[in-house]
Amino acid sequence: MNDQLLDVVGIGNAIVDVLAQADDAFLEEQGLVKGAMTLIDAERASALYNAMGPGVEASGGSAGNTMAGVAALGGRGGYIGKVRNDQLGGIFQHDIRAVGIEFETPPAVEGPPTARCLIMVTPDAQRTMNTFLGAAVDLGPQDLDLEMIRRAKVTYMEGYLWDMPPAKAAYLEAAAAAHGAGRKVSLTLSDSFCVERHRESFLELISGHVDLLFANDHEICALFQVDSFEEAMTKVRGHCEIAALTRGEQGSVIVSGEETVMVEAESVEQLVDTTGAGDLYAAGFLYGYTQGKSLYDCGRIASIAAAEVISHFGARPATPLAAYVKQRLG
Amino acid sequence: MNDQLLDVVGIGNAIVDVLAQADDAFLEEQGLVKGAMTLIDAERASALYNAMGPGVEASGGSAGNTMAGVAALGGRGGYIGKVRNDQLGGIFQHDIRAVGIEFETPPAVEGPPTARCLIMVTPDAQRTMNTFLGAAVDLGPQDLDLEMIRRAKVTYMEGYLWDMPPAKAAYLEAAAAAHGAGRKVSLTLSDSFCVERHRESFLELISGHVDLLFANDHEICALFQVDSFEEAMTKVRGHCEIAALTRGEQGSVIVSGEETVMVEAESVEQLVDTTGAGDLYAAGFLYGYTQGKSLYDCGRIASIAAAEVISHFGARPATPLAAYVKQRLG
Repeated sequence: MNDQLLDVVGIGNAIVDVLAQADDAFLEEQGLVKGAMTLIDAERASALYNAMGPGVEASGGSAGNTMAGVAALGGRGGYIGKVRNDQLGGIFQHDIRAVGIEFETPPAVEGPPTARCLIMVTPDAQRTMNTFLGAAVDLGPQDLDLEMIRRAKVTYMEGYLWDMPPAKAAYLEAAAAAHGAGRKVSLTLSDSFCVERHRESFLELISGHVDLLFANDHEICALFQVDSFEEAMTKVRGHCEIAALTRGEQGSVIVSGEETVMVEAESVEQLVDTTGAGDLYAAGFLYGYTQGKSLYDCGRIASIAAAEVISHFGARPATPLAAYVKQRLG
Repeated sequence: MNDQLLDVVGIGNAIVDVLAQADDAFLEEQGLVKGAMTLIDAERASALYNAMGPGVEASGGSAGNTMAGVAALGGRGGYIGKVRNDQLGGIFQHDIRAVGIEFETPPAVEGPPTARCLIMVTPDAQRTMNTFLGAAVDLGPQDLDLEMIRRAKVTYMEGYLWDMPPAKAAYLEAAAAAHGAGRKVSLTLSDSFCVERHRESFLELISGHVDLLFANDHEICALFQVDSFEEAMTKVRGHCEIAALTRGEQGSVIVSGEETVMVEAESVEQLVDTTGAGDLYAAGFLYGYTQGKSLYDCGRIASIAAAEVISHFGARPATPLAAYVKQRLG
């Protein structure tokens, strides 16, 4: 039996990204909402892929990216997510294990292929995502490694899981197992459209089961149906132990009990592709948190990790992240 | 019937690249020869992949990269190469069609999977390639679209094809079809180890069937078993209409009849990954040649196209290549 203590276990949709450059005219032609994550079916995925330019494939998935970030920073982690036993599933499995993350969720042996996310990156570095969930839709309670969850200081989950009932059930079971073992539970709201789809049950979830919440300004405003970030900050206080709220170039704000910690954004020489920015912010924060750092330091590590990932194409770190953070922290 | 005139048809091993960063210690551990292309079997491919870091997948194959470059420059082209009807084969097919290249070679419906090339990029930007040929080994005369070859001003082939007897037979049949239609035939020597494996038959081939030859300094020296580039230059003259010989940072030399044209290398701000340098040099040269440019201009376009591809990770153009070349040509 493996009884090694882990820092973070991530649970999410196991996805291979297909990244391509596109212009605004292409988004318009295809009726795509810039910056959003849209769920698409197999037929639409095929039509959109046919219309897209040449792509680059890389393992993705929000929580998968976060776990790759935690590992790159030196943290120990595990991942739970569902691929199919096909070539893309093999790629996902290889890449997450190659960075040192435990990944033992058995792949599906029948049914739809491994999930893919068609990502258009426009010249303004924004990413627009279209996800065919494929095998990931079958993620359910039966896939949870509860022992792994109990070994982890934090269990981190994507809001995206809330789109599928079995994954939602898995979420609740995982949260109960983590709390039962005296561990923490963390959630990212993932996407403002995802929040719109599931607002009521997200609010219930956060109040009852979430210790650390991640959200960007759009998501937190959508959650509380308010127009201003300040209002959202007031509303979220007390709902969970810590809320880390990101605001792009304006940095982030960490709200915890009576405390409010402002963290500046990290400057980047060249903004290339925002894919993975939120995922790596969460990675940096969770790494800092599980190492016992102050909230400000957690936010700083988070911002630096996010800065690295937006300075190149793709959603996972491309440079040795621990050294990058160390150098910038000074 | 499609009777559109094409600039170039490329014939080659249809391969998906798996690019990963690696250090010299990893190459040593794995017994890899830096800078070379080594053929590996399925078992070795699996073991090496398991040992590698996380990868990025992108369509590759030497002639495939060249054709993507020709298309990016504004040329019209076709490609002949064998994939399997699997996910990686779908990726290869999508990417080459997405840039506007005709690709109709039927995928294999049984047998080994689509070829992959495990590429380690070391901090010195050198690439070390390990190719599992998979379905590409079945490329043979039956896969040739002779009508497409007759429509193309130049039929361009990889020396790598010489490693497999059916591909070699296809090569000779394609060359005969091209010449029968009054077209030109072009070859790249591909790799000095490949030249060592097939020296005698390459020499016969070049004298009898090649009009435009591409080679780097190591390859041309290996072909003639000489130590100096100057000697190799003397030897190659007269063997074919044009020989374009590349020398990395020292630029290239084009030998044609009594003419010798020297072309400076194009400077790059940051050398990131040399994967595809030779392939894009050939793309630029063939594009210029089929547009009736002077040998010097062909060499210039070639050098600029190569400079673009070595300034980023991956073997195909990542920036709009026609505009990049136009700007640098001045």
